[in-house]
Amino acid sequence: MVHVGERKAGKAKITIINYDEHHFEEREVQNVEDCFPFKSKPTVTWINIDGLHQLEIIQKSGEHLQIHPLVLEDIVNTSQRPKMEDFDDYIFVTLKMLQYSDEKKETRTEQVSLILGSSFVVSFQESEGDVFDPIRNRISTNKGRIRKMGADYLAYALMDAIVDNYFRILEKLGEGVEDMEEELIVNPTPETLQAIHQMKQEMIFLRKSVWPLREVISRLERWESSLINKSTSIYLRDLYDHTIQVIDSIETFRDILSGMLDIYLSSVSNRMNEVMKVLTIIATIFIPLTLIAGIYGMNFRFMPELEISAGYPMVLLIMVCIGALMVLYFRKKKWL
Amino acid sequence: MVHVGERKAGKAKITIINYDEHHFEEREVQNVEDCFPFKSKPTVTWINIDGLHQLEIIQKSGEHLQIHPLVLEDIVNTSQRPKMEDFDDYIFVTLKMLQYSDEKKETRTEQVSLILGSSFVVSFQESEGDVFDPIRNRISTNKGRIRKMGADYLAYALMDAIVDNYFRILEKLGEGVEDMEEELIVNPTPETLQAIHQMKQEMIFLRKSVWPLREVISRLERWESSLINKSTSIYLRDLYDHTIQVIDSIETFRDILSGMLDIYLSSVSNRMNEVMKVLTIIATIFIPLTLIAGIYGMNFRFMPELEISAGYPMVLLIMVCIGALMVLYFRKKKWL
Amino acid sequence: MVHVGERKAGKAKITIINYDEHHFEEREVQNVEDCFPFKSKPTVTWINIDGLHQLEIIQKSGEHLQIHPLVLEDIVNTSQRPKMEDFDDYIFVTLKMLQYSDEKKETRTEQVSLILGSSFVVSFQESEGDVFDPIRNRISTNKGRIRKMGADYLAYALMDAIVDNYFRILEKLGEGVEDMEEELIVNPTPETLQAIHQMKQEMIFLRKSVWPLREVISRLERWESSLINKSTSIYLRDLYDHTIQVIDSIETFRDILSGMLDIYLSSVSNRMNEVMKVLTIIATIFIPLTLIAGIYGMNFRFMPELEISAGYPMVLLIMVCIGALMVLYFRKKKWL
Amino acid sequence: MVHVGERKAGKAKITIINYDEHHFEEREVQNVEDCFPFKSKPTVTWINIDGLHQLEIIQKSGEHLQIHPLVLEDIVNTSQRPKMEDFDDYIFVTLKMLQYSDEKKETRTEQVSLILGSSFVVSFQESEGDVFDPIRNRISTNKGRIRKMGADYLAYALMDAIVDNYFRILEKLGEGVEDMEEELIVNPTPETLQAIHQMKQEMIFLRKSVWPLREVISRLERWESSLINKSTSIYLRDLYDHTIQVIDSIETFRDILSGMLDIYLSSVSNRMNEVMKVLTIIATIFIPLTLIAGIYGMNFRFMPELEISAGYPMVLLIMVCIGALMVLYFRKKKWL
Amino acid sequence: MVHVGERKAGKAKITIINYDEHHFEEREVQNVEDCFPFKSKPTVTWINIDGLHQLEIIQKSGEHLQIHPLVLEDIVNTSQRPKMEDFDDYIFVTLKMLQYSDEKKETRTEQVSLILGSSFVVSFQESEGDVFDPIRNRISTNKGRIRKMGADYLAYALMDAIVDNYFRILEKLGEGVEDMEEELIVNPTPETLQAIHQMKQEMIFLRKSVWPLREVISRLERWESSLINKSTSIYLRDLYDHTIQVIDSIETFRDILSGMLDIYLSSVSNRMNEVMKVLTIIATIFIPLTLIAGIYGMNFRFMPELEISAGYPMVLLIMVCIGALMVLYFRKKKWL
Repeated sequence: MVHVGERKAGKAKITIINYDEHHFEEREVQNVEDCFPFKSKPTVTWINIDGLHQLEIIQKSGEHLQIHPLVLEDIVNTSQRPKMEDFDDYIFVTLKMLQYSDEKKETRTEQVSLILGSSFVVSFQESEGDVFDPIRNRISTNKGRIRKMGADYLAYALMDAIVDNYFRILEKLGEGVEDMEEELIVNPTPETLQAIHQMKQEMIFLRKSVWPLREVISRLERWESSLINKSTSIYLRDLYDHTIQVIDSIETFRDILSGMLDIYLSSVSNRMNEVMKVLTIIATIFIPLTLIAGIYGMNFRFMPELEISAGYPMVLLIMVCIGALMVLYFRKKKWL
Repeated sequence: MVHVGERKAGKAKITIINYDEHHFEEREVQNVEDCFPFKSKPTVTWINIDGLHQLEIIQKSGEHLQIHPLVLEDIVNTSQRPKMEDFDDYIFVTLKMLQYSDEKKETRTEQVSLILGSSFVVSFQESEGDVFDPIRNRISTNKGRIRKMGADYLAYALMDAIVDNYFRILEKLGEGVEDMEEELIVNPTPETLQAIHQMKQEMIFLRKSVWPLREVISRLERWESSLINKSTSIYLRDLYDHTIQVIDSIETFRDILSGMLDIYLSSVSNRMNEVMKVLTIIATIFIPLTLIAGIYGMNFRFMPELEISAGYPMVLLIMVCIGALMVLYFRKKKWL
Repeated sequence: MVHVGERKAGKAKITIINYDEHHFEEREVQNVEDCFPFKSKPTVTWINIDGLHQLEIIQKSGEHLQIHPLVLEDIVNTSQRPKMEDFDDYIFVTLKMLQYSDEKKETRTEQVSLILGSSFVVSFQESEGDVFDPIRNRISTNKGRIRKMGADYLAYALMDAIVDNYFRILEKLGEGVEDMEEELIVNPTPETLQAIHQMKQEMIFLRKSVWPLREVISRLERWESSLINKSTSIYLRDLYDHTIQVIDSIETFRDILSGMLDIYLSSVSNRMNEVMKVLTIIATIFIPLTLIAGIYGMNFRFMPELEISAGYPMVLLIMVCIGALMVLYFRKKKWL
Repeated sequence: MVHVGERKAGKAKITIINYDEHHFEEREVQNVEDCFPFKSKPTVTWINIDGLHQLEIIQKSGEHLQIHPLVLEDIVNTSQRPKMEDFDDYIFVTLKMLQYSDEKKETRTEQVSLILGSSFVVSFQESEGDVFDPIRNRISTNKGRIRKMGADYLAYALMDAIVDNYFRILEKLGEGVEDMEEELIVNPTPETLQAIHQMKQEMIFLRKSVWPLREVISRLERWESSLINKSTSIYLRDLYDHTIQVIDSIETFRDILSGMLDIYLSSVSNRMNEVMKVLTIIATIFIPLTLIAGIYGMNFRFMPELEISAGYPMVLLIMVCIGALMVLYFRKKKWL
Repeated sequence: MVHVGERKAGKAKITIINYDEHHFEEREVQNVEDCFPFKSKPTVTWINIDGLHQLEIIQKSGEHLQIHPLVLEDIVNTSQRPKMEDFDDYIFVTLKMLQYSDEKKETRTEQVSLILGSSFVVSFQESEGDVFDPIRNRISTNKGRIRKMGADYLAYALMDAIVDNYFRILEKLGEGVEDMEEELIVNPTPETLQAIHQMKQEMIFLRKSVWPLREVISRLERWESSLINKSTSIYLRDLYDHTIQVIDSIETFRDILSGMLDIYLSSVSNRMNEVMKVLTIIATIFIPLTLIAGIYGMNFRFMPELEISAGYPMVLLIMVCIGALMVLYFRKKKWL
């Protein structure tokens, strides 16, 4: 069992929430052993472990809950692809939690693993800070259905909170896309291209996180597991629809970003066209005139025009005429 | 239950249409409770609710009709993906109604949700104004089969009206595409590119609305629900074919628009080529002549040509010859 | 029931062909009612109706043959997607007939609908003129198997004639593609691009007509309908293979056309490169020489070179040398 | 029955090979009737017919072997897509034989059709010359398993020989791709582009021949036909793997060729960039200097610099300085 | 049986590892016959053969283990696509082992074939040196579960080691991609393009090796073979997940590389734009000034300006003004 991912300092934090319709208890424990008595209680228990670097905690809880060693390996390997596995006694689900930090203006990815037993859910997170506060609230204040339902509903609620947050991320990205689109029309720079490219890459990574989730939730819903009640199944179907919606949005963003790239490239071409036109107009007007000036700057002894007193103004007039004709020609060609 | 979408002022409008083969009644009610007696009648009842922001109306009707809370949430969340769900007692369908406004020259999207019970249909719309007037007409004037059929046929008729309108939207967009195609050949500008891009994006959004509809209607048709008669199934199959046709058309438009983008880009290249040719022709003809003029403008003391009396006309003749040769060369190269 | 499509003037034309192994009869009738007696005959009857704008004919025949109203609507709506539907008593098939007119150099599309009953086939066409003459010939001269087989074989023969014509259309398009390919190598112009674009669009439309046909025929073949004999099934399988072959060819053409677009674009780039090289060579050779001429055209009082009697030829020599060096440089760079 | 394909002169050539473990006989016969006695023998018989233009031979053998008329039509129509059909008494397989001729440096395609009966294989080829010589050898010298196995193994061996030859073709094409890749780096010309384009097209046609073969062999392997022994099934599975490998290679080549096209296009861009840089450097250095020379070539009466005896060398010095500064500037910009 | 692939000199090396929970034995043998006694032992035996060019070794071991001749052919044909086949008595798996050599900075591909029997695994490698040392270690030091499990777990462990190494290769490639990305932003050269192209090709080959592996392992896991215990099935499922992860990563890299190509091409366009701007600015400023100088260099007898004593400084002033105006104009156009 090897921990893969950013190594965090400090101790892992273990919190227990135990509840049923009439009763509620929240506690932070120091040792993972303190959680074990809750397992056999008929009330719903949610054990949340923040921090995967203390392998002995994972090991101990795994042994006590009789979890397959491969599952423990998957929990501490944070480069896991979202997946779901049913081991009859418990269901193992792992997925990616995304959080957008307004301060740092970046998206943080964290792997969350869930073990769903008959009356408990154990959740493993890489570090403190998550998107589950509304659920803790709903449990403690007994709002909504959550206190009336079993552990399977709790697992659903946790996954739902994670998927709901994807929408928030997408909204943020959507704003970024709109900003870029405006920039693209007003003043496209190589930085805009860089930004489109980066956004595209973010979409690729987001897609990689969400795409397998679709299958995970679909399998959870269809699975004939005794651990999931029929009444929770409906909620999972709803969650499935949300996941599809997230995937749809990502695909739409990808299509839009591809279109923006095309626009950028053709606007670069257009501007080069503009530059070329300016050059061509200037060169086409002045080079012939320069030739005329050059001709009358030749030192031939016998050049009759030079002797005519109206020669100079006439040549100037001819030059102006040629210039004007050129301008008219470019007007007609719609270059001016 | 949270209302997602544009918040509308004013009260929600509730209308009831109750009919069977021999009887017809249309009424606008103030309170949702006034609808409830109709539910148990054997005649077909269509309750239409315009406005989703008054959550208590949705709530009350949901409770009375014993609709699952998740369905109510889906009704008021207007960013829903088209979907269909069967709850034995009723079938829930949500889809997107598109309306093209000739005045504003824009497409308006609205979410329409349908609850199909044994003898009633409840339709929820975001705001007043819809595409259902022909159906109201057919019911009130007893035209066609609608008065002879049950609530399932009414639900079909509503969905059919929505899908029929997609064709109208596609026709409008098709006209736009044709206009752009002509513009592309006659006089392509960066605005044409912008228009192609915008049309492409509209297709992306249209596709997002219609694509899931295919599955919704396919499932409705194949579903072995007691709420849908076999005779209505044939109509749903027809509706399914129409949806496929809409999707086909969207894909075709996308292909055409991609082709137009290629044409635009290569026409930009072509024009740059033209510009470059003009510049090159001018420069290639005049720069050598300028050199000749420059040479005879040098102030060397001993330049025999300068003393010859025919020097000047001869140099002019040479210049004309060189220019003519250049022109011939470009003719041969097909640049002129 | 609304007729969608080009409105034709004149009366619809109704022809009846009735045959079995020993007997043959062809007749043109004025009223659709004259066809009805043939329906109950044990011999095979082919009723062909040219013209969909006389809705009362469609209506009457539909009522007599007890055809579902939706089918009649599909027959007169000529923007139908190819499809097949089984109503136990009869099978309804609609598909697109393509005809290439050598005179007008264009492809004409027409919708053909077939009703296959136990001993009759009714075919509906938009207008006179079709690809069925060889079949009429084979029936009247009793060539091949057609007179020995039932109505299902007749329906197969009609569809086969339509698909066979697709090959002829593809051949015509293939010749066009070859012409364009030659043009692309010899002398590519913006018109070539336009032609490639148009051919691509024709492929898109052709594909739209043929793609759903694949499914139609596949379903006909696999369908366990009492109306289709096992011996005809083999012919349908063959027809299915032909359809696949048509689709294959269309896809191949699309691939080739995409490749040609790439070739066009890069040949435009290549030519711009050529233009740029000419300009650069001219400018690079003559601009420095012009500078030299300019220098000795300066009016400084003390310019010793000007006084040397060999100054002028020496400067000319230097100019020639510089020009020659430049040419050598460009030769080395493979620009000349 | 119509022969489609290149019409060959001369008589069709019919050869018979009859063998079992202990016995071997090879014979060329003049009339197809001479083959018929072999059909009922228990030993394996391979009848090979070179030449499809003599329809009466195909007709006669078809009648004798009781082959469906559609199969005969498919045999003589050489634009057939590879396919397999089971008629209980015999299995019909048609596929494409490709031969690379080192002399002509081109790939020749020929359609080969096989009829596999209980104790015989009939193979139809368009013309003489095939890839089956190693098989004839193995039969005559009793090498390997072929003499110990039945007609189904013979059919497998023939198809295997054809697929094996695809690898040889791919190797040849692979060498061509490598040559082009080297050319692309060393000296890309429009001819390289032409070659890439042609290779791409060859891949398209190769793919068209091989892609349906995958399904043909897969169906042969899975088919529960009494004509194919279980022991031969293993060989068919192996053949299937080879076909997949061929398809994989074709797809890989296509990917590589697409990449090469990108490389070509961007190398064209790069070279244009180079050309533009040379032009810009020359123009930017010499045009300002030409202006200076022009200024001191003006004929104003009062130009003090002209009178200074050091004026001329100073101006020359200034010119050299400006030129040097420009060169430094371009060095800094990494253009030189 | 023909050996395809690089021919190696030297003798093939045969090593035997025999173990159960309590016993361990490792031995290198000279003749393949020395391995045979191990086959019937109940303990697990791993026979590893390095070197496929000594066909007689493969032949002998094949005969002794009663392996199908086709399998032996597949083992020595190193251009095999990864595949799995079940022959009841044994399962045959072939896959690609990739090794990254830090010294040579290249990836080496080797084909590894496994024969899994009831109590033995035979592995065939092309040459010495592999990724199995950690497994040998775990067996000899009795670490982990491997000594407690059967031959099926050993086969899993070998495949797992190979797939694990793919991750290492991907990491190396990932570093390369990051380096290129930095280069792309800082200083893109044609070499960067070449590197992107090469990386893309490497991805194509990697994908070709890994893609079929997905199916191989999926079939192994689902296969109802008596040779694979249910407890090992879980590990195979895990291995399957890893393979999917590798494929995901490859696809992601491909997407990123495509994006980088776009960036490269548009940065080339951008730089050409820059070059064009410099040229245009220089030409546009200096060409008009050169014309003015040229005009006052004409030799007309009557040019009043020339006589004015302030003529020269005034003309210089005008030139500076025109130049300054041009610079302002370009500033406004954001070209400077």
